[in-house]
Amino acid sequence: MTGPVITISRQYGSGGRFIGRKLAEKLGIPFYDNELISLAAKESGFAESLFENAEKNTTYSLLYSLSMFGTSTGGMYGLSLSDKVFLIQSDIIKSVAEKGPCVIVGRCADYVLRENDNVLHFFMYSDIENRINRAIKYYGLDEKKAKEAIEKTDKKRAAYYNYYTGERWGEIRNYHMSLNTDSIGVDNCVEVLAKYVDAFKSSDKQ
Amino acid sequence: MTGPVITISRQYGSGGRFIGRKLAEKLGIPFYDNELISLAAKESGFAESLFENAEKNTTYSLLYSLSMFGTSTGGMYGLSLSDKVFLIQSDIIKSVAEKGPCVIVGRCADYVLRENDNVLHFFMYSDIENRINRAIKYYGLDEKKAKEAIEKTDKKRAAYYNYYTGERWGEIRNYHMSLNTDSIGVDNCVEVLAKYVDAFKSSDKQ
Repeated sequence: MTGPVITISRQYGSGGRFIGRKLAEKLGIPFYDNELISLAAKESGFAESLFENAEKNTTYSLLYSLSMFGTSTGGMYGLSLSDKVFLIQSDIIKSVAEKGPCVIVGRCADYVLRENDNVLHFFMYSDIENRINRAIKYYGLDEKKAKEAIEKTDKKRAAYYNYYTGERWGEIRNYHMSLNTDSIGVDNCVEVLAKYVDAFKSSDKQ
Repeated sequence: MTGPVITISRQYGSGGRFIGRKLAEKLGIPFYDNELISLAAKESGFAESLFENAEKNTTYSLLYSLSMFGTSTGGMYGLSLSDKVFLIQSDIIKSVAEKGPCVIVGRCADYVLRENDNVLHFFMYSDIENRINRAIKYYGLDEKKAKEAIEKTDKKRAAYYNYYTGERWGEIRNYHMSLNTDSIGVDNCVEVLAKYVDAFKSSDKQ
């Protein structure tokens, strides 16, 4: 049987996106993150920039939504821009998941694929001090900005997830495995995740 | 450096206790569960049966506590029986953790050892259908009793944990790794946990 589709949810600054990319490389399967956005944008005909902001901003003004999309979206008339983007992204996620094993980071992919059997859901998190250090090191922020970015981004991710799934973001039962990335570092996290994927592939639970 | 102390928290019927025992065997380190209770009972001079019930029943009647322990417990006078048992168990947990690597299941060991650096905290959980099946298979319950036992035991574990730690039981941030035991089975869970422990031992994070 082919390997599973893997979704990765992550706290901002946990290294989760980087771990997802390295896991995909290790397993030799596609990785979807910004790629997914581009793909969604192309297929829908919407401007790519709107998709980039969809997870960051869960609410647009009604006026803006209507002026931009009110009369041109067929069956989705009446939905907010965020809702439309979510539905299109969900279709793309389902579509790439059907094609075969891959790693998908963020965008409620765990919820979108919750009915699929051959899917593993992982959650990556980290202590606040290490997240601040990563944001300083990798995103070039100063300490104050790093703290703000962590608080703001996680709050929005949680609100986005809660709005579209009705579930609490980071609730243990929604994942097959959750890892604190601090104690063993990102490379070892990739190894542990790969170990779980191997075990899943070789077990008769699929 | 010597290996870490490992605490395992688990849902009833998740296979977590069994996984903890097998992990201890694999790593060649002591396993504490009922053994811990016996040790605590011996050291304190309290009756062993009281310790066995401490996690199952968080509240005793005041009258019962006073009649049994009211005047014979020195510095712990005024505390409930449960509180006394918790404090004694906590001392035992700290004491065995100081002696070297071991696996400790339940009894808020993750909270008791939260300040220790060389400790890993794992949480084991499982889907409800599989927990019912395990309770039927391993504890000899019928389906109705199995469901009741799961609901009742988890509720008490959560209340016990919350009472003594002020934290929500099963909150992702309190563990280094959390595993759904269903998708890969208990033997593979032991392997994945051992992989994490190895990575922790070989990393420079200790």
